[in-house]
Amino acid sequence: MAVYTDIADDELQAYLGEYDLGDLLAYKGIAEGVENSNYLLHTGCGYFILTLYEKRVAASDLPFFLSLLEHLAARGLNCPQPVKTRAGAALGELAGRPAAIFTFLDGMWIRRPNATHCQGVGAALAQLHLAGVDFPLRRHNALSVGGWRALVDGACKRADTVAFGLADTLTAELRHLEQSWPRDLPVGVIHGDLFPDNVFFLDTRISGLIDFYFACTDMLAYDVAICLNAWCFEPDQSFNITKGRALLLGYMRGRPLSDDEVAALPLLCRGAALRFLLTRLVDWFATPPGALVRPKDPLEYFRKLRFHQKVASARDYGISIE
Amino acid sequence: MAVYTDIADDELQAYLGEYDLGDLLAYKGIAEGVENSNYLLHTGCGYFILTLYEKRVAASDLPFFLSLLEHLAARGLNCPQPVKTRAGAALGELAGRPAAIFTFLDGMWIRRPNATHCQGVGAALAQLHLAGVDFPLRRHNALSVGGWRALVDGACKRADTVAFGLADTLTAELRHLEQSWPRDLPVGVIHGDLFPDNVFFLDTRISGLIDFYFACTDMLAYDVAICLNAWCFEPDQSFNITKGRALLLGYMRGRPLSDDEVAALPLLCRGAALRFLLTRLVDWFATPPGALVRPKDPLEYFRKLRFHQKVASARDYGISIE
Repeated sequence: MAVYTDIADDELQAYLGEYDLGDLLAYKGIAEGVENSNYLLHTGCGYFILTLYEKRVAASDLPFFLSLLEHLAARGLNCPQPVKTRAGAALGELAGRPAAIFTFLDGMWIRRPNATHCQGVGAALAQLHLAGVDFPLRRHNALSVGGWRALVDGACKRADTVAFGLADTLTAELRHLEQSWPRDLPVGVIHGDLFPDNVFFLDTRISGLIDFYFACTDMLAYDVAICLNAWCFEPDQSFNITKGRALLLGYMRGRPLSDDEVAALPLLCRGAALRFLLTRLVDWFATPPGALVRPKDPLEYFRKLRFHQKVASARDYGISIE
Repeated sequence: MAVYTDIADDELQAYLGEYDLGDLLAYKGIAEGVENSNYLLHTGCGYFILTLYEKRVAASDLPFFLSLLEHLAARGLNCPQPVKTRAGAALGELAGRPAAIFTFLDGMWIRRPNATHCQGVGAALAQLHLAGVDFPLRRHNALSVGGWRALVDGACKRADTVAFGLADTLTAELRHLEQSWPRDLPVGVIHGDLFPDNVFFLDTRISGLIDFYFACTDMLAYDVAICLNAWCFEPDQSFNITKGRALLLGYMRGRPLSDDEVAALPLLCRGAALRFLLTRLVDWFATPPGALVRPKDPLEYFRKLRFHQKVASARDYGISIE
């Protein structure tokens, strides 16, 4: 949930003067996205989403994100499309922040995904990876293995206040991942944050993907590992192998994984679990006690990490190399 | 801003099964209202607002609020209309809370109202009061003079931590108002909370009023006093007599104030200022330091109260008895 910046009616009217969207009829702050302020706009031309980029998104990354959305849509992937001003600009400034207007995407995110949903998200992820093959821009993944040491160093001092032994686990896990992190797997555009709230469904079919603000250039199989973490655990943090198999088969029908990618999955899943454990710890420590917005539980990903540490091969996720 | 309760997609689908609104296409939590959780719905029939009533609204009051909206609309006032189930019910239950669906009202609230807006809100308030004349239900105003002593008692202990001398002011002001509060002025349905964020405009014309959850049966001129407080002070808390006159003349064109009502305005304005000062103090003390949602500043209404204490007659608000 996020509406950080209030926009004055006259400011917004003036901003919309640059667009061919008709009269402004209504706008409301909406609880979508965590990094930015989002508004629903109703104009003479229909409904749109207005995003104001808050500090956590670097302005220099915005051209990558906006171009990517257009690139993917041109290859058949459903995602919000930037609406351009009459002068052809996708990016403007409103209330002192970078701002963009997007088409409104119908669909709902699924609170309790089943195996059919997991298969769908696997297929959509493969479609995204294939559509991104010829995307010309690159963006470094600051939240991959190279970025974790700084987060571990920052979190370790207080980690044991969250769970006894957490600091040691973080240190040992990081050392292991730094030594064994794969280097030669296929690389391309990854979504990087394809959690259930970023995947819209109408009935059992995916109507679109949203929130590409962690998209970057990294190993495609790492994106698969992020999805296994995000979609295939039950609320009690047990891994559901039926969902894992469905997600992986859905993916491989679109883009077959190489033997090396399959073999690397347990390691990539550990890395993905560590990545979300670390960023949730940062948010956890940054949130004052009693705050009305509760940060997500870091321990969820501590438990997932421990599951992956015990995984012997991708067979435990539902597939094997044959 | 408020989205307190998350609704699962399948829960909402099931709930909408009772309505003739077509398929559910999208829903998003919106930052509107302070007491309830609000969602924008997109269905096969268009856009709607879904409200879940949280604890601060008494379920037993909901029939009053929903009937009032229908009553006022039938008399030409623009306000959200409850959408009924196929069985004819305006009120349901969703996510363990009372729930209702409303028509979507276009328009924007004005962050920096001018005298024209103030005249408009005066006229709309008179229209509301006239439309409510024959409304058969009654609701006691728990936030009028009879309810203030409990709030003063609760706030006094800590009031001086907010402003030195505040506790004494509250006690003395309450004593004065209890002794002199008018008893014989015309009574009817009042909105009770007609602040700028509850009045929608399209251009300079009012497109509708929202948020009737403080509506009750009380002196009509008290509602005028609430609006003078909410609309006619500048950001530095100086009273703008041009706006005051515009609001009062806008009102009186629709519903002339009696001499007694005009004479009582200074006292009613003091009461209205005390009422919002007190409820803001309660929120202030209830909000932990560092919370992400900041309560509204109670001192704004302390300063307004002090202005009204020095007012000699309604002439200081821009009108006089002739």
